[in-house]
Amino acid sequence: MNIGFIGLGVMGSPMAGHLIAAGHSVFLNRVKPVCQHLVEQGGTPLDSARAVAQAADIIILMLPDTPDVDAVLFGPNGVAEGLSKGKLVIDMSSISPVQTQAFAARLADLGCDYLDAPVSGGELGAKNAALTIMCGGTTAAFERARPLLELMGKNITLVGDVGAGQTCKVANQIIVGLTIAAVSEAMTFAKAAGADPAKVREALMGGFAASRILEVHGERMINRTFDPGFRIRLHRKDLGLAVDGAKALNLALPNTATTQQLMNTAIARGDGDKDHSALILTLEALAGQTG
Amino acid sequence: MNIGFIGLGVMGSPMAGHLIAAGHSVFLNRVKPVCQHLVEQGGTPLDSARAVAQAADIIILMLPDTPDVDAVLFGPNGVAEGLSKGKLVIDMSSISPVQTQAFAARLADLGCDYLDAPVSGGELGAKNAALTIMCGGTTAAFERARPLLELMGKNITLVGDVGAGQTCKVANQIIVGLTIAAVSEAMTFAKAAGADPAKVREALMGGFAASRILEVHGERMINRTFDPGFRIRLHRKDLGLAVDGAKALNLALPNTATTQQLMNTAIARGDGDKDHSALILTLEALAGQTG
Repeated sequence: MNIGFIGLGVMGSPMAGHLIAAGHSVFLNRVKPVCQHLVEQGGTPLDSARAVAQAADIIILMLPDTPDVDAVLFGPNGVAEGLSKGKLVIDMSSISPVQTQAFAARLADLGCDYLDAPVSGGELGAKNAALTIMCGGTTAAFERARPLLELMGKNITLVGDVGAGQTCKVANQIIVGLTIAAVSEAMTFAKAAGADPAKVREALMGGFAASRILEVHGERMINRTFDPGFRIRLHRKDLGLAVDGAKALNLALPNTATTQQLMNTAIARGDGDKDHSALILTLEALAGQTG
Repeated sequence: MNIGFIGLGVMGSPMAGHLIAAGHSVFLNRVKPVCQHLVEQGGTPLDSARAVAQAADIIILMLPDTPDVDAVLFGPNGVAEGLSKGKLVIDMSSISPVQTQAFAARLADLGCDYLDAPVSGGELGAKNAALTIMCGGTTAAFERARPLLELMGKNITLVGDVGAGQTCKVANQIIVGLTIAAVSEAMTFAKAAGADPAKVREALMGGFAASRILEVHGERMINRTFDPGFRIRLHRKDLGLAVDGAKALNLALPNTATTQQLMNTAIARGDGDKDHSALILTLEALAGQTG
């Protein structure tokens, strides 16, 4: 199949690699020297997003944020200029659910289908083709995309209509971020009150406080191993999608907003490129705890 | 063994019942008509906490809050007046870790040992002798208490010195409360953005957002089954222990404080005696969602 892949970053590069390895004709844009191996493996570099959209039947995007997707789709020499009726755009970036619906509507006017399909699982998940993929769109678009998504991920769900994939991803990031904050506050309290956080974590693992975060990130907090993993800087961006979405939808997400503020402090402290479990360092600093 | 049990509420009554059923001599105080079956089963009612402390070698407390424990221990005709050297007080109430250390020190002056042993697992756990019990005290006190604790619970941990059990319980309530708030915010966002919360929950269960709270309380939120379970009113009290403890220890717990505020609103809305998963109703109300 003729596939376009735009956004060859830490995530996109191995994802595109899986599509090439499966024998698809993959058209690439903005191939930096660090991605030259994708061309050697058989990918075709083209000089614009427009050219990629012209050459491919399905165009996949994996970009940093909402404005990047906007620019690649609708900017000069963008995807929209190269699209023709019947093509499918799959946006695997993590961006605004509200804007996603607007993008899909504009592409529908060109006779093209749209699937939002953001992922979780990080760099390791991308490399191992083990990403969790949360999709929004029609069943037809989902079924058309599925064989490609299965080359990149494992737990692939159609959550609902266009935007529902992004909404699900935001919900994921809210829960993960706020659970990290919860475990951070609990452990900071335990430490200040003179209890051993490691023993507290053990005692809590069997009950209602149990979570993947307490298990994995709680252990990181205790062992002080804060190599990413998923960087605080990126999680702050995702909570920004939640906060911006909340504003657009007129709803209050108080703990999400506060946790984003705590991530601001974390970045101000120089922890932006540490794993998000390092949020506990900010809580500890607020408690006057050091080391 | 001669055991005193003071605090025959929803939790204490079945807990005392297990001790009587195991053949211990159990001395009770303030036996209301609803607990008369404990006397029929063999419990001995006495007319003061002081008399209970005189009759028993080990005195167990299961009371609502810090001031209740203070009054029963040190008030007129209280436990302290009936104690003599070598006796052990086990406080299974959920109260202030800081005050717990003060209580233990005062009893140590009388030559008595102290174990804080708060529980989680609720009324059902108490009835089924399946409570999780988090202990703080010396190893000697813990080993002396253990045979009795094993009649009431299953997952029994010595977390650290006196106060560490209460600290662990507070940490548990922080994590549980904040995770409920996290799932509530995520589901409210999903609903407002037009996604089906049930499908979002399903998609998230396999990843880093997975928790016992998402599993059990997330399902309650979707099915709107808010019978307790654990009442918001009681959880607010426990977050009060966290907030008061944070003040005593000069540390900031921003999401804990905000979640306690949300529980204030939940109680103002008339949801105080609903299960704590009903916190989502407050988030939905803040979003203008109804029903």
